Amino acid sequence: MSDCIFCKIVKREMPSQIVYEDDRVMAFNDINPLAPVHILVIPKEHLTNVLDINENNADLIGHIHLVINRLAREKGIAEKGFRIVTNCNPEGGQVVYHLHYHLIGGEKLKNFA
Amino acid sequence: MSDCIFCKIVKREMPSQIVYEDDRVMAFNDINPLAPVHILVIPKEHLTNVLDINENNADLIGHIHLVINRLAREKGIAEKGFRIVTNCNPEGGQVVYHLHYHLIGGEKLKNFA
Repeated sequence: MSDCIFCKIVKREMPSQIVYEDDRVMAFNDINPLAPVHILVIPKEHLTNVLDINENNADLIGHIHLVINRLAREKGIAEKGFRIVTNCNPEGGQVVYHLHYHLIGGEKLKNFA
Repeated sequence: MSDCIFCKIVKREMPSQIVYEDDRVMAFNDINPLAPVHILVIPKEHLTNVLDINENNADLIGHIHLVINRLAREKGIAEKGFRIVTNCNPEGGQVVYHLHYHLIGGEKLKNFA
């Protein structure tokens, strides 16, 4: 998707604070953080949102969660606590239409809907 | 875990409005809904939270997401939009210490932290 900002981040055509990368996913700091730790974890492949997940690519979601666990431990928020969120389509609050998981923590979080 | 309320729901020792079940997961309506649709999807196996996910059981997370997609479509909120949330440990807002994913939708959702 040539006009997708997250695809541009993956291709390094747009700057970001990358905190993790492997062959399938990338993680970078949210530019409008809602909490002291606010990282987005995305697949490098362009998927619109979680509705693009099916039996053939569902293992990607497990992998993303392993990366999130690793980042939560690295950032020192695993035991205190954190939240994982993915928003899908307008009423869910999705803003960028490239699948992404929010890792949020570093303070006591409020309600989530 | 004999004192875990979600384990009791799995064993049908406690009532719940079950909306989906298979050999690995169960889904039921949240008793304190934050939105018109608020379903919890849990593994039948007792896992404390997402930090219990490792390379040996990460496929469970993909499966939970496939179940969520199916429920979102069944409830008619897939295209309008929905949110998926898991809270981990106190600052994340975890209340019941049995891994669960919230599927929330049916109205325009507010912010999530």
